[in-house]
Amino acid sequence: MAREDPLRIALIGFGYWGPNIARNIAGYPQAELAAVCDLSPQRLSSVSTSFPSTPTCRTIDDLDASTFDAVVIATPTRTHYPLAKYFLELGKHVLVEKPLTADSGEACELVDLARLRDLTLMVDHTFVYTDAVRLMKKLVDDGSMGDLVYFDSSRVNLGLFQPDVSVMWDLAVHDLAILDYLIDKRVVSVSATGGIHHASNHPAVAALSLEFETGFFAHLMVSWLSPVKLRRILLGGTESTVVFDDLSTDEKIKVYDSGVDISSPEDARSALLNYRLGDVLVPRLSNTEALRREISHFVECVRQGREPETSGRRAVGIVETLEAAHKSIAMKGAPVRL
Amino acid sequence: MAREDPLRIALIGFGYWGPNIARNIAGYPQAELAAVCDLSPQRLSSVSTSFPSTPTCRTIDDLDASTFDAVVIATPTRTHYPLAKYFLELGKHVLVEKPLTADSGEACELVDLARLRDLTLMVDHTFVYTDAVRLMKKLVDDGSMGDLVYFDSSRVNLGLFQPDVSVMWDLAVHDLAILDYLIDKRVVSVSATGGIHHASNHPAVAALSLEFETGFFAHLMVSWLSPVKLRRILLGGTESTVVFDDLSTDEKIKVYDSGVDISSPEDARSALLNYRLGDVLVPRLSNTEALRREISHFVECVRQGREPETSGRRAVGIVETLEAAHKSIAMKGAPVRL
Amino acid sequence: MAREDPLRIALIGFGYWGPNIARNIAGYPQAELAAVCDLSPQRLSSVSTSFPSTPTCRTIDDLDASTFDAVVIATPTRTHYPLAKYFLELGKHVLVEKPLTADSGEACELVDLARLRDLTLMVDHTFVYTDAVRLMKKLVDDGSMGDLVYFDSSRVNLGLFQPDVSVMWDLAVHDLAILDYLIDKRVVSVSATGGIHHASNHPAVAALSLEFETGFFAHLMVSWLSPVKLRRILLGGTESTVVFDDLSTDEKIKVYDSGVDISSPEDARSALLNYRLGDVLVPRLSNTEALRREISHFVECVRQGREPETSGRRAVGIVETLEAAHKSIAMKGAPVRL
Amino acid sequence: MAREDPLRIALIGFGYWGPNIARNIAGYPQAELAAVCDLSPQRLSSVSTSFPSTPTCRTIDDLDASTFDAVVIATPTRTHYPLAKYFLELGKHVLVEKPLTADSGEACELVDLARLRDLTLMVDHTFVYTDAVRLMKKLVDDGSMGDLVYFDSSRVNLGLFQPDVSVMWDLAVHDLAILDYLIDKRVVSVSATGGIHHASNHPAVAALSLEFETGFFAHLMVSWLSPVKLRRILLGGTESTVVFDDLSTDEKIKVYDSGVDISSPEDARSALLNYRLGDVLVPRLSNTEALRREISHFVECVRQGREPETSGRRAVGIVETLEAAHKSIAMKGAPVRL
Repeated sequence: MAREDPLRIALIGFGYWGPNIARNIAGYPQAELAAVCDLSPQRLSSVSTSFPSTPTCRTIDDLDASTFDAVVIATPTRTHYPLAKYFLELGKHVLVEKPLTADSGEACELVDLARLRDLTLMVDHTFVYTDAVRLMKKLVDDGSMGDLVYFDSSRVNLGLFQPDVSVMWDLAVHDLAILDYLIDKRVVSVSATGGIHHASNHPAVAALSLEFETGFFAHLMVSWLSPVKLRRILLGGTESTVVFDDLSTDEKIKVYDSGVDISSPEDARSALLNYRLGDVLVPRLSNTEALRREISHFVECVRQGREPETSGRRAVGIVETLEAAHKSIAMKGAPVRL
Repeated sequence: MAREDPLRIALIGFGYWGPNIARNIAGYPQAELAAVCDLSPQRLSSVSTSFPSTPTCRTIDDLDASTFDAVVIATPTRTHYPLAKYFLELGKHVLVEKPLTADSGEACELVDLARLRDLTLMVDHTFVYTDAVRLMKKLVDDGSMGDLVYFDSSRVNLGLFQPDVSVMWDLAVHDLAILDYLIDKRVVSVSATGGIHHASNHPAVAALSLEFETGFFAHLMVSWLSPVKLRRILLGGTESTVVFDDLSTDEKIKVYDSGVDISSPEDARSALLNYRLGDVLVPRLSNTEALRREISHFVECVRQGREPETSGRRAVGIVETLEAAHKSIAMKGAPVRL
Repeated sequence: MAREDPLRIALIGFGYWGPNIARNIAGYPQAELAAVCDLSPQRLSSVSTSFPSTPTCRTIDDLDASTFDAVVIATPTRTHYPLAKYFLELGKHVLVEKPLTADSGEACELVDLARLRDLTLMVDHTFVYTDAVRLMKKLVDDGSMGDLVYFDSSRVNLGLFQPDVSVMWDLAVHDLAILDYLIDKRVVSVSATGGIHHASNHPAVAALSLEFETGFFAHLMVSWLSPVKLRRILLGGTESTVVFDDLSTDEKIKVYDSGVDISSPEDARSALLNYRLGDVLVPRLSNTEALRREISHFVECVRQGREPETSGRRAVGIVETLEAAHKSIAMKGAPVRL
Repeated sequence: MAREDPLRIALIGFGYWGPNIARNIAGYPQAELAAVCDLSPQRLSSVSTSFPSTPTCRTIDDLDASTFDAVVIATPTRTHYPLAKYFLELGKHVLVEKPLTADSGEACELVDLARLRDLTLMVDHTFVYTDAVRLMKKLVDDGSMGDLVYFDSSRVNLGLFQPDVSVMWDLAVHDLAILDYLIDKRVVSVSATGGIHHASNHPAVAALSLEFETGFFAHLMVSWLSPVKLRRILLGGTESTVVFDDLSTDEKIKVYDSGVDISSPEDARSALLNYRLGDVLVPRLSNTEALRREISHFVECVRQGREPETSGRRAVGIVETLEAAHKSIAMKGAPVRL
C-alpha cells in the first residue's frame, strides 16, 4: 500500500452511529469508505442513497477482503468479540465501538491477537477526541493544575433502559475512558454500589469509586433515573480545578484558579486552612468534530504503526474496571482489586 | 409551670449560630431567653446590647438553675456530651446543635438519660424545619411520588477545612438528617469512600452509599474541594421525582412528573422500557424561617411530652451512620453493617 | 384535483432552509415534492441524491406548470416579490419565506393579487408553528392569563452581519410574527431606536416599542452584537405571565401564576400594591416539528380555501411595522403611525 | 477641624436604608456617627440599642449644629430638596439618597448652593461603589474594550408598586448612574416608552433609549411586572464586551473577548462580516462593601475639597434624563433633547 493511497475502510453496521462514521470516513481525504455491511436491506438502501459509489452487502462473508485494509465495527456489543477476531485473523486493522467487549478475557484475547499480527486495534471512545477533553489533557500535562487530587463525574438522565445491561456499560464507560486518557495511573481497586429499579434486574443508578496507586480519588455517578440531565466532570488539582459541562453550549470548559493553601504541616492540625479563590477562565473551544479527529487518528496509527490513544490495550483496563464494579455492587460496595 | 407561661430557655454558646437562636427564642411569644452563657466577655457584651434584659454569665456554674426550664447548647461538638449530660441531670430539657455527639455510645447515653428523666432531647437539624424539606415530606407522605426508588445528594463547595474532622461531620450530617426525616426506613449497611487532600489527614471529599431494608438506594456526595458549589437533593419515586436545589432563589423545589413505565414483567427483559416525561411544577414556598419553626416545635414537644421530629433517639442513627462511613472509608468501601 | 390527491408543490430555492422544506414536503402524505428549482447545479445534484424521483431545473422558465399546484419560495428577500407575483399570475398557491417582501406596497399588491385569483398566499413565519408558541396561544385564548398587559422580547446574539439590511429584518420579524399570532390587536404606532456598529451602515442593535389601540405595551430588543445569546419572550397578563425561552432544552415555556392585585381604585393612589407570587408550571411540550405543522397547515388552507394563520394579509402588517420602525430610528424614536 | 479628627456625620432618617448607613459610618475610623434624627420614636429606640453613645432626636430643629460637620439624608425623595437646602445653608456637607431630587430645577439650585458655600454635595448612587462597577470602569479606562458601542441594561422584577412614582425613578436611576460613571459622555436626547398597569397611573414597565454626542447607543429596560428577575448590564466595545449580572453569586462580571472584525470599508457593503469568538474571563471580585467605600469616599472628598464621583453636579444630569424620559413617554417615544 503506497503512502499516498487512502486507507480503505469497510464499515460493519449501519445503525444509530454508523451513518456518522460513514460520513466521516468518506469526508476524510486519506480514508475511503470501501464497503458497508448490514443485515438490514432498508439500511443498505439508505447507504446507497448517501454513498452511491460504495458497495454494500448483508453479511461479512459477502465482503471482498481484497478491497479493504481496515474495518470499523459498529454493531451490538455482544458481536464485538467474534467480529473483531474474524477481521484481525483476516489481517485487517480494527476500530471497534465502545465497549471493546463485555468480557475482559475476550478483550485480552483480541489485544494479543492484534499484537501478534502487528495490527492496529482501537476502540471508539469518542469523548477522548472532543475539543473539551483534549483541552483538559493539555491542562493536566502542562502542570498548571498542580498535583491532581480528585475526579468527580455525574452522567445522569432519564434514560432508555437497556434490559440486558446495567447503566454502567452505557454511561460509566465514557467517564472511565476520559479518566484513563487524562491521567495515566493504574486503578488498584473499585468499590461500587447501585440501585435497581423494579423495571429491570440490573442497576439503573450506580456510584463507582476508584482507588489509585497514588491516593488520587475518582468517583463516578451514573443514572437512568434522573429527570435532571447532567454531563459534568470535575478534575481537581492543588493549583486549579477544571469543570467540563457537556450540556453547556458556550461554556463547556471552565478553569477555576482556586485551591487550598497550607503554609506548614502544623497548619493541617492546628487551624482552619485557607482556600484561595481566583479568576475563572472559559476558554474558547474549536469546532472540530470528534469523530473526524478520531478517524484521522486511526488512519495515522495504522500508517505509522503507533498505539492509538484509545488502544485495545487501554480499553482492557476499562472493561476490567466495569467488571470489578459489578462484582462490588453484588457485595454492597466491598472493594474489588484489579 | 402554667400552660400560659413562656418556656424559659438558657442559651449556652453565643458564637456563629448562637445569635440566630437567641433572636428566635426572644422573638417567639411562648419562649423566653432566660440567660446566655459564653466564655467570651466580648460576646456577652454583644448579648447585652441586643437583649438588654437577659442575664449573662461566663460559665454554666454561674447559671441560676431556678431561672430556666430548658437549654440550647450551641458550643463545639466535643463539648456536647458533657454539657447535655450536665443539664439533663439537672432536670432541664435540651436542644443541642448538630451533630448530637461525635460518638454513638455517648449519644445513646444521653438518649437513655433523657428518657429516664422524662425530658425532651432534641437535635438542631435545621434543614428538617425548612419550607423546602417540609414540602418534600408532604409529597412523600401523600403518595403522589409512588414508591421511593433513590435519594441522591450533592453538597459540595470550596470549604473551610476543619482540621480535626472529616467533611462528613460537616456536610453529610445535613443530608442524613433530611433523609431520616423524609423516609422512615432503617439503614442496614454503609459503604463509603473518600479522598484526602494533602493539607489534612481527614477526607475532604467523600461518597456514601446507604443500603436499606427495602432496596431503596441512597447516595451522598460531599466535598470541601469543589469550586462549583452544589446543594442538591434528588428524591426519585416511581411516579415523580423531586429536586431540591437550595442554591436557587426562586426554584428551590421542582416536582418532575416523570417516571419509568413498565407494562408487564416480560418487558423488563425483552425490550427497551419507555420513560414518560411530564410537566414540571415549581411550587411556591412560604417564607417561614426554619429556626423559628424549630424553636416552636421544641417548645411544643416540651409542653406536650412528644418526641421531636429530630429527637435524640433519631439522631443516634445519624451518628452511627457517620461512624460506619468512617470505618468503611478506612476499608476502601467495604460495607459496614449497622 | 381530486380531494385525495396529494398537493403537488414545487420548491424554488434550495439554500440554507430549502432542504428542510423539501424534507417536510416529501415526508407529508398529502403533499408531493413536484419539482425543485435552483440556480446552482451543485445544489440540484444534492437534491437528486436526497430526492431521486423529483425533477430539478435551474430557472423557473424550465418548470412545467402542469406538474404542480403550489410553490414554496425560499430565495433571498429581494426576489420574493417578482417570484410570488409570477406564480400567483400563473394560478399557483404560494408559501413564501419570511419576510414576505421588504416593501409594504409590494406586499399589498401580492395580497390583492392572491385574493383576486382566489389563491392561498402564506408566509413562512415558522415560530408560529412551534409547540411553544401554540401553547402560549392556548393560554392567551382560554382566558387564564387575565388581561394582557405587556409583551417583552429579547432576541440577541453575536450575529452574522448582513450588510444590506438591519438587524430588524433578520430578527425582529420573528417576534412581530409571534406577537401578531398571539394577540389579535392593531398596532397604532411604532417608536424605535437603534445603534450602528462602525462595520455597517444599518442598525446592528435596535429596540422597538409598539403602541396598540388598547394600551397593551410591546417592546422588542434585537441585536447582532451580544456575546450572550438570548431568545426570550415574556407575555404578561393580570393573572399570570408566560415566559418562552427558546434556548432552554427542557423548560422552553414557564407559566408564572403571579400577578399584581388591587382591591379598589383608591389603592392605586394611596398605598403600595401587593403582588402575588404563586407556583410556576413548566408544561411538557410535544415534539412536533414546526415545519411539518406548517406544511400541513398550508395544504389544508389550499384545500379548504381558508386563510392561513400566517397569511399574506397579516404579514403586510408586519412589513409595515418594520418599515415604520426604520423611519422612527431615523427620527431618533419619534413615533410613526400606522 | 484637625486633619486627624474623624468627620462628624449626622444621619437624617433611619428607615430601610438608614441602619446600613449608620453601621458604615460608625465602623469607619475616620468618621463618627454624631447624631441620628427620625420622626419615629420606635426607630430612635432601635438606634439607641445599636449605637448607645449616639444622641438621637425627632426633628432637625433639635440637632445641635455644633456637634456635626456633615449629614447623610436618607428620607423620602420629596423631602430631599428642603432638607439638603437647610443643611447646606447651615454650612454642612451633604450626602443625599438617590435620587437627588425629583425636579431638575431644585437639583440645580442645590448644586449652586453647595458650590457657593464650597461644600461637598454627593448623591448615594451605591452601585457606583460596588466591586463590579469599579472593575467595569477599569476595563473601560484601560482601553482593552476598544471603542464603546452600546450599553444595554435590564432591571426587571415583580416589584412593589410605588403609587406616586413610575418604575423609572425606582430602577432606571441605578443604570443611569452606572452609565454616567462608566462613560463620560453627554446625553443628547432621550426616547422612552412605557406601559401602564391598570393598578397605577404611572408606567410600571419602561424602555429608555439615550442618544449621545458620539453615536454610542444606550438602552435601559425597567419593569415592576416581570416574575423573572433580571439585573443585567451589557457594555459592548469593538474589542470586548463586559456583562454584569448582579444576580449571579459567583460570576457577576464576565469579560467576553469577542468582537466584530472588518478588514476594509468595502466589506461593510459587500459581504457578510466575520465575528470573532474568544475566551471568556470571570474575574474574581473582592468583597468590599459598597457603602463602606462610599462613606470613605465622602469623607475624603470633604477633607480634600474634591468633587465626588457621584457629585450633585453629575446627579443633575441623571434627574434631567429621567424628566426627559417621562416627557417622551407622554409623547409615545418622541425624542426629548437635553
